Amino acid sequence: MSFHLTPGAEGLRTRLFHIIFESDTPGSKAFDIALIIAILTSVAVILLDSVESYSDRFGHIFFYVEWMFTLLFTVELAVRIYCLERPTIYLKSFYGVVDVIAIIPTWLVLLVPGAHGLVIVRLLRVLRIFRILRLMEFVGEARLLLDALKRSLRQILLFFCSIFMVVTLFAALMYTIESPEAGFTSIPMSMYWAIVSMTTVGYGDIVPATSVGKAITMILMLMGYSIIAVPTGVFSAQVLRSIREDRYSEEACPGCGHDRHEKRAHYCLRCGTWLDEESEDPRKKEEKKDDDQQKGGDQNTSQDS
Amino acid sequence: MSFHLTPGAEGLRTRLFHIIFESDTPGSKAFDIALIIAILTSVAVILLDSVESYSDRFGHIFFYVEWMFTLLFTVELAVRIYCLERPTIYLKSFYGVVDVIAIIPTWLVLLVPGAHGLVIVRLLRVLRIFRILRLMEFVGEARLLLDALKRSLRQILLFFCSIFMVVTLFAALMYTIESPEAGFTSIPMSMYWAIVSMTTVGYGDIVPATSVGKAITMILMLMGYSIIAVPTGVFSAQVLRSIREDRYSEEACPGCGHDRHEKRAHYCLRCGTWLDEESEDPRKKEEKKDDDQQKGGDQNTSQDS
Amino acid sequence: MSFHLTPGAEGLRTRLFHIIFESDTPGSKAFDIALIIAILTSVAVILLDSVESYSDRFGHIFFYVEWMFTLLFTVELAVRIYCLERPTIYLKSFYGVVDVIAIIPTWLVLLVPGAHGLVIVRLLRVLRIFRILRLMEFVGEARLLLDALKRSLRQILLFFCSIFMVVTLFAALMYTIESPEAGFTSIPMSMYWAIVSMTTVGYGDIVPATSVGKAITMILMLMGYSIIAVPTGVFSAQVLRSIREDRYSEEACPGCGHDRHEKRAHYCLRCGTWLDEESEDPRKKEEKKDDDQQKGGDQNTSQDS
Amino acid sequence: MSFHLTPGAEGLRTRLFHIIFESDTPGSKAFDIALIIAILTSVAVILLDSVESYSDRFGHIFFYVEWMFTLLFTVELAVRIYCLERPTIYLKSFYGVVDVIAIIPTWLVLLVPGAHGLVIVRLLRVLRIFRILRLMEFVGEARLLLDALKRSLRQILLFFCSIFMVVTLFAALMYTIESPEAGFTSIPMSMYWAIVSMTTVGYGDIVPATSVGKAITMILMLMGYSIIAVPTGVFSAQVLRSIREDRYSEEACPGCGHDRHEKRAHYCLRCGTWLDEESEDPRKKEEKKDDDQQKGGDQNTSQDS
Repeated sequence: MSFHLTPGAEGLRTRLFHIIFESDTPGSKAFDIALIIAILTSVAVILLDSVESYSDRFGHIFFYVEWMFTLLFTVELAVRIYCLERPTIYLKSFYGVVDVIAIIPTWLVLLVPGAHGLVIVRLLRVLRIFRILRLMEFVGEARLLLDALKRSLRQILLFFCSIFMVVTLFAALMYTIESPEAGFTSIPMSMYWAIVSMTTVGYGDIVPATSVGKAITMILMLMGYSIIAVPTGVFSAQVLRSIREDRYSEEACPGCGHDRHEKRAHYCLRCGTWLDEESEDPRKKEEKKDDDQQKGGDQNTSQDS
Repeated sequence: MSFHLTPGAEGLRTRLFHIIFESDTPGSKAFDIALIIAILTSVAVILLDSVESYSDRFGHIFFYVEWMFTLLFTVELAVRIYCLERPTIYLKSFYGVVDVIAIIPTWLVLLVPGAHGLVIVRLLRVLRIFRILRLMEFVGEARLLLDALKRSLRQILLFFCSIFMVVTLFAALMYTIESPEAGFTSIPMSMYWAIVSMTTVGYGDIVPATSVGKAITMILMLMGYSIIAVPTGVFSAQVLRSIREDRYSEEACPGCGHDRHEKRAHYCLRCGTWLDEESEDPRKKEEKKDDDQQKGGDQNTSQDS
Repeated sequence: MSFHLTPGAEGLRTRLFHIIFESDTPGSKAFDIALIIAILTSVAVILLDSVESYSDRFGHIFFYVEWMFTLLFTVELAVRIYCLERPTIYLKSFYGVVDVIAIIPTWLVLLVPGAHGLVIVRLLRVLRIFRILRLMEFVGEARLLLDALKRSLRQILLFFCSIFMVVTLFAALMYTIESPEAGFTSIPMSMYWAIVSMTTVGYGDIVPATSVGKAITMILMLMGYSIIAVPTGVFSAQVLRSIREDRYSEEACPGCGHDRHEKRAHYCLRCGTWLDEESEDPRKKEEKKDDDQQKGGDQNTSQDS
Repeated sequence: MSFHLTPGAEGLRTRLFHIIFESDTPGSKAFDIALIIAILTSVAVILLDSVESYSDRFGHIFFYVEWMFTLLFTVELAVRIYCLERPTIYLKSFYGVVDVIAIIPTWLVLLVPGAHGLVIVRLLRVLRIFRILRLMEFVGEARLLLDALKRSLRQILLFFCSIFMVVTLFAALMYTIESPEAGFTSIPMSMYWAIVSMTTVGYGDIVPATSVGKAITMILMLMGYSIIAVPTGVFSAQVLRSIREDRYSEEACPGCGHDRHEKRAHYCLRCGTWLDEESEDPRKKEEKKDDDQQKGGDQNTSQDS
C-alpha cells in the first residue's frame, strides 16, 4: 500500500506528503516518533481513565487530554487527506479505516451522549505502530519472518486442525465422564477447559473431579506440553532456511544452471564459470598468456580453480 | 488405503467413485468441501445441543437437524458401499468404522430410548477432515512432518520415559512429605499433581503446603520448564534435515556412487559425471571438437568444470 | 559399567550372565522385557496400594503380590551376585545400590513393623528401565542427546544462573511491595511464587494484590515466557550439529588433512585423494591406460573428478 | 570494563589487584570462588531472616552474621579502591555501584533505625556472579549467546511489540464484554489478565465468566501457546548461525576473495589457493618436480585438487 500525491502539487503539499507518508528524511522520522508517542500517550490516558480511582480524581484532566488527542488526530487525518490526490483509496485502506475509527467516538459524544464507551476502539490505533515499524528499518526482519511463516503456513494450519480435533474429542469425552458440578456443564464449556489445559494455561476454574477424568487430563496435558515442539521445530527450520537463502543469489549460473551461489561469489562452485560481471575473470588473462606462450607448467594454476 | 471400484462398473458408479474417493476433479473437490461443511455443522449442532439454555429453546430444531444429518451421512455411506466392489474392506478400514459409528447412535434411539447420549461419538467424524486434507494438497507437508516425527520417535520415547520416571519419583516423594489434607491423598493423585506441575499447566487445585514440599516443587517446575527444550531441539533438527533432504535426489551418481545431489543438479559434484539424462553433457561436444582439432588452449575450459 | 564373569565359570553361570547382563540374544532380550514388566507391575501395585479405597478392598492381595515381587527381585539379585566374579563392584554401582534398596523395605518389615512405608523407595527401580534401554537399541539416540547436552552444558548453567538471579531479585522486590496477607510472607515464599510465575506454571495459590505488584508480575511473566527460547535455541542448534557430525567420518584425508568427509565418501572433496580403502580408485586404472596410450582427449574425464 | 592499577604500584598492591580483578592465577580463582560462596551465604542469611519462625529463633545469630558479611564486603571494597589508581571510575561502574549499595543498608542502621529493611538490596550483589562467570571460562559461551541475541534483537522487539498490541486489544475487548465482578475492573487489570493468559501462566485469579469472554479467551490462549514458536525459531536459527560462523575463519582468500573457509582449511575451497601460511603447499613441490621432469601422467594429482 503506497499512496501517491497529486502530480502538480504545490510545495507545502509535497513536503507534507514526504513527512507523513515516507520515513527517510529527518523530518519524517521525527513525525513518526512523535506519532508513536502521541498514540501511546492517548492509549495510556484511555487505560488510566478506565481505572475508577484515577478517573474519579483526574477525570476532568483525562477529558481535556482526550479532546486534545482527538483534535490532534483529526488534524492529522485532514492533512493526510489534503496531501493525497486520491484520498478515498487511503480512506478505504486498513490504516485509513483505523484512523477514522479512532477519532469518531469522541466526536460522536457531541451527538449521542452514551457513545463515550466507544472511545476504546481508539486502541486500534496502536496497530499503526506496525506501519511505522514497517516504514522504518524493520522491513528486512519482518520480511524474513513473514517468509518463514508463509512457508510453514500449511504445517501451522495442520497443527491447528489437529488441536481442534484433539480438543473436540477430549471435550466430548470429559463431558460424558465428568459431572456438571465440576464445571463440565456442556461440550463448549469442556472445550474451553480442554484448551485451557492443552495450552498449559491451567486457570484452575474447571478441574477434573473423578479419577478417570484426571487420568484423561494427564494425557491431554502431556500432549499439549509436547505437541508445541512441532510448530516450533517447523518454524525454526523455516527461519534458518530463510536466513540461508537470503545469503544466496537467485541468479542462475550461465554455464551450468546451478542457482545456489552466495551473493558475493565470483565463480560458479559447480562448473567454474565466472559470475561477477563487474570484474574480469583472472583465468582469462592467464589463458591469453597461455595462447601467447607455449603450453607450460603454469597451466596447472589455471586448472586448479 | 485406496479402494478400487468394480471393473465392469456402469457409468454412474464410476462417476460417483471418482467424486467420493478421489479429489482431483472439480466435482470431487466440491464434494470434499461440502462434506467438511456438513461434518462441522453437525458437530456444531451437537456442541450447541449440549448447552442447556440452547437445547431448551432450540431443542426441536436440533432434533430435526440431527436427523437430517443422520439421513445425509447414511445416504453417503450407502453410496460409498454401492460404489465399491469390495465394501467390506472399506467397512473394516479406520474411516469406514468411523463412518458407521457416526450414524449408529441416532438410529439406535428408535430401538433403545436412552441411546441418544451416544450421539457424541459422531464427533469422531471430524477425524475424516484429516483424510480429506490428505487427499488435498497437504500430502507433502504432512509427509515431511511425519518423516521428522519418525526419525525423532526414539528420542521422543526416551523423553516420555524420562518424564514418567521423574513424575513417579517426585509423586512418591511428595506423597510421603505432604499431608492428604493438601490434596496428596495417594501416589496416583500425586502423579496427577506432578504432571500438572511439570507440564506447566498449574491448575492450583493441589498445591504443596509445607516448605520442603514447596522446595521440591520448585525443582520440579524448573525441570518441566527447561526439559521441553529437549524434544523441541530434536524435532527442529529433524525437520530441518527432512527439508534439506527433500532437496536432494535419492539417485546415486553412476560415476562414483555419491548420492546427495540436488534434484536439479546437472553434474555430480564429487566426480563430475553428467547426471541430467534429458539433456546432453556440453563437455562431450567439446571433447568431440578436441578430437577433431589438435589439443589446444581451449582444453582448459573443459577441465575447469 | 560392565561386569565380567568368573573366567573359569561353569556353563550355567556363563549362560545366566549372558541372559542377565547382556542383551543381544533372544533369551537376554526376553529377560529384559520380563524385568521391565515386573518392575512396572510392582510399581503399579505400590501406586494402587496408596489409594485408600483400593487398599481397603484389595489390601491383602497387594500384600501377597508385594511379597511375591520382593522374593522375585531377591532371587534376581542373588543370581546377579552368583554370576559375577566380583559382586562387590556390582553392589557398589548405581544399579546395584538401587537393586538392594528396592528389596530392603519389605524384608525390614519382619524386623521393624513401621518400615512398610519405606516400600516406596522401590519406585527407584523404575530407573533400571534406563539401563535396559541403554542395553537395547537406544544407545545411538541417547548418545546424540547427551552429546548435544554436554555441548550446551555451560549455556544451560548460565541459563539457570540467570533464572536464579531474576527469581531472587523479583522475590525480594515483591516481598517489600506485597503484604504478607497476599501470601508473600517471606523471601523464600516469594521465590516460590516467582518460580511458579516464571516457569508459567501459575498455580494461583499466591497472586499479587497491589497494582505495582501486578505490573512487576507482568514483566516477570513475559520474561519467563520468552526466556525459554534461549535454551531451546541453543539445544536445537547443538542437536543439529551432533546429527550432522554423526554423518561425517572423523578420519582425516591423507592427502590434505581435510577431516569433514561424509562417512561413505570415496574421494576427498577438497583435494581429490581416494579415501575408500576397500576398493580401488577408478582414476588409477585410467591413468595406467593413459601411460599405455599416448596422452589423448579422454584424459579430461580423469581430470574432471 | 577493565580497571588498571597504578603504574608504579608496590608489590602488595599489584598482587592484590591480580587476585581481585583477574582470574587466571590459582590465587585469583580461589578469591572468586570464596567471593561467590560469601555472596551466596549472605543471600541465604537474608532469605532465612525474612522467614518469621527462623528470625524469631536465630535472629541474633543472623544479626551477627549480617554484620560479619557487611564488614567483610566493606574490607573487600576498601581493598578494591586501594588497588586501583582511579577508584572513582570503578565506583561509577555498574559493579562498583552494586558493591557500595550492598554494604550501605547495614551501616545506615547505625544512623537511621528503620533502615534495616533496605538490607534486601544486598541481594543485588548476586549479580556479581555474572562478572565472575565472565572472568572465568564462560566468556565464549556467553559471547555466542549474546551474538545470537544481538542478531535476533529486532525480531524480538517486533515480537514484544506484537504481544503488547494483542494484549491491549484483547484487554479492551474483555473489559467491555466481561463485568467488573469477574475481575475485569479496568483495562490495566484486563491487560494483567491478558498477559497471565497469553504467557500460559494462568493463575486463575481472574477468569472469564461469560460465554463470549470464554470464546475470546480460547483464541488468546491458542495465540499465546503457538506464538512462542516465533522467537524460539528465530533464536534457534541465529544460535546455529553463530556456532557455524565460529567454525569459519574471517580471513578472505588472497586468490579469489572467498571468505567462508573453515578455520583449519589448507586450501581455498573455491579457487584452490593455499591458505595455511605455516606449512608449504604440497602442490608446489610437485610442480617443481614437474618442471624438472617432463610433463607426465602424475600431473593429474596436482590438477585434481
